[in-house]
Amino acid sequence: MKFLRPDITGLPQSGIAKIAIPRLGDPSVIPLWFGEGDRITPEFIREAAMSALAEGETFYNFTRGTLHLREAIGDYLARIFGVDVHPDRITCPGSSMLCVTIAAQLALQKGDHAVAVAPHWPNIEMTLKIAGAEVSSVRQRLTDEGWALSAQEIIDVVRPNTRCIFVNSPCNPTGWVMKPEDQLALLEFCRERQILLIADEVYHRMVYDGSVASPSFLTIARDEDPVMIIYGMSKSWAMTGWRLGWVITPREASTAWQIMSENFNTGAAVFTQRAAATALRDGDGLVAELLAHYARGRDIVMEILSGHPRITLSKPKGAFYAFPRIEGIESSLQFAQDLLDTEDVGVAPGYTFGEDNEQHIRICFARSHEQLEEGLTRMLRYLDRG
Amino acid sequence: MKFLRPDITGLPQSGIAKIAIPRLGDPSVIPLWFGEGDRITPEFIREAAMSALAEGETFYNFTRGTLHLREAIGDYLARIFGVDVHPDRITCPGSSMLCVTIAAQLALQKGDHAVAVAPHWPNIEMTLKIAGAEVSSVRQRLTDEGWALSAQEIIDVVRPNTRCIFVNSPCNPTGWVMKPEDQLALLEFCRERQILLIADEVYHRMVYDGSVASPSFLTIARDEDPVMIIYGMSKSWAMTGWRLGWVITPREASTAWQIMSENFNTGAAVFTQRAAATALRDGDGLVAELLAHYARGRDIVMEILSGHPRITLSKPKGAFYAFPRIEGIESSLQFAQDLLDTEDVGVAPGYTFGEDNEQHIRICFARSHEQLEEGLTRMLRYLDRG
Repeated sequence: MKFLRPDITGLPQSGIAKIAIPRLGDPSVIPLWFGEGDRITPEFIREAAMSALAEGETFYNFTRGTLHLREAIGDYLARIFGVDVHPDRITCPGSSMLCVTIAAQLALQKGDHAVAVAPHWPNIEMTLKIAGAEVSSVRQRLTDEGWALSAQEIIDVVRPNTRCIFVNSPCNPTGWVMKPEDQLALLEFCRERQILLIADEVYHRMVYDGSVASPSFLTIARDEDPVMIIYGMSKSWAMTGWRLGWVITPREASTAWQIMSENFNTGAAVFTQRAAATALRDGDGLVAELLAHYARGRDIVMEILSGHPRITLSKPKGAFYAFPRIEGIESSLQFAQDLLDTEDVGVAPGYTFGEDNEQHIRICFARSHEQLEEGLTRMLRYLDRG
Repeated sequence: MKFLRPDITGLPQSGIAKIAIPRLGDPSVIPLWFGEGDRITPEFIREAAMSALAEGETFYNFTRGTLHLREAIGDYLARIFGVDVHPDRITCPGSSMLCVTIAAQLALQKGDHAVAVAPHWPNIEMTLKIAGAEVSSVRQRLTDEGWALSAQEIIDVVRPNTRCIFVNSPCNPTGWVMKPEDQLALLEFCRERQILLIADEVYHRMVYDGSVASPSFLTIARDEDPVMIIYGMSKSWAMTGWRLGWVITPREASTAWQIMSENFNTGAAVFTQRAAATALRDGDGLVAELLAHYARGRDIVMEILSGHPRITLSKPKGAFYAFPRIEGIESSLQFAQDLLDTEDVGVAPGYTFGEDNEQHIRICFARSHEQLEEGLTRMLRYLDRG
């Protein structure tokens, strides 16, 4: 296919897709590979979409998102973070992944360099590369207090042509949560150097220290700062399949976002936006309920895995994944494939989350506790057999 | 905003958005500016989405589209074009605009050149530029037989670094329909030179010569040809706000599309795809009914406008727009703005469809015939006054 960009056709398929697609929807598999629970979006949210459909909300609307949704987002952010965000700073172009892609393309093109905190979701490195950038990863360290990374370690890999830094906190896959003092130091560096900071905070409601949300760049960023902060409905409101996220940007960037949104997906469906607005307004109970469910899932993972002699596992501080290291495995993909083939348990291979993760796997603990226990028990059985 | 790409922040807002956004949703305006009718998506299509929601279809699925939808698309294409398209060649990443953007980015980056047939929808030039390309337009000629352009005229503007040619037929805004012999010549050229041909055929069902569909690259492209053909639900099934389109690609490109779809919007919602599949399967009557409505709208435009001494208007052969030239106007934006301010009629200014359109405006004739007549009558009143 000489007519396609070789740097794109040379991109590897995500390791998650690679292992999962052949058995997608197979009911015999315990699927711990995706970042997704097994709970159907609650009825009050689905009802909002169905009402909008029944009322005939099937036309184009603002490509940056309906005012109704953007106001609901503003109210939500005020309630959770105590900040007052103008609707012009809010754009909802489609999914939070689309927010990441657009943000990356707003800053990057061929010849530019980007930095991504690792381990990271495979899509992050890919989307930066699709934008044309060369990508450096800076990997969190596993310490006695869990995964750690300072702002200075990130700054140390910045080059003269670095145009974008990507940080995902709480982190998929490690559960790392960036400290407020490191956020401030990184923000000041980006402000000084005019480097776009993409802050992926889709897991902001999933922290296990009792806080209502993770420390956020939103609370320290000034309106004109080179920061774009991304949120989404998928994880905390059980809306993975809806493809709805939003981004907070400098107000001055709102026209650029309008143009990009129009040229990418031309916005999200109004009925989807109605559902999201309802979820944000009436979903605090749901968020709390899901968090309690994930917290118990996290405990189950620790109870079952952490005592195993071949497993090193730090208790995740945020998000809903465990990222254990398994002594003695040589290929995370081979391990995940064998586990799937012999025990029908689906996990994500570590290699796809960046370099030096070949002995890791990612386990999502969002699903039913029975499935999770069964899956982990089978995994240990497999480990002890081999 | 030094942290953003100057080539993107320098992009103009679409002239359609520019004029329409300040009065979006204002009921006193007769909106002929968007490519959208006033018919709510029919109930049988909305019901399919609502059923899927009621059944709990709220999870992730294949990022290239559900097999259910891709099979429905395959059946549809077989019925309309008599071709047998393998599901691996079909991707539904979100809207047809997203298909265009992904296709463009698969071929183009900074340093590359792209050719677009003009007059064209403003998003086309923008999305090619966002991909990093320099863009040359090749403009259709208005002849006694309507808008015309040969394959050779397109080929004549190709450069050594041309990596993509964009053709939209039937054309928004002129209604031009590319001839089969020109499609064949262009395809052979692209095959020979390995240049990606993006064929935007979203208006394929809107032709007024009695054919079931416009001449299509689909019927002449071989599986391995460098062609991506784009369709969408918006126009012929009254589903503008749903953001659902699909693309037919070489089979070998399916993994690249899976990666791109995952990194852009990670697919469309399953309930939206269910609605589209129902529309494709059961919507032939709807398509015919809408086409008859548009045909009458086209007649109304010709009856009211074509006799006017200052108006040159060729009867559109496809799509649902008229693109008249109005003698004596100096700025299409000023004309559109004055018409809006004084008569509450919204039209799209010609300048935004590429160079040499400053005396043109685009009128969508998809809405109610009463509104269309009233809008056109007011426009003539405005013209004759000024």
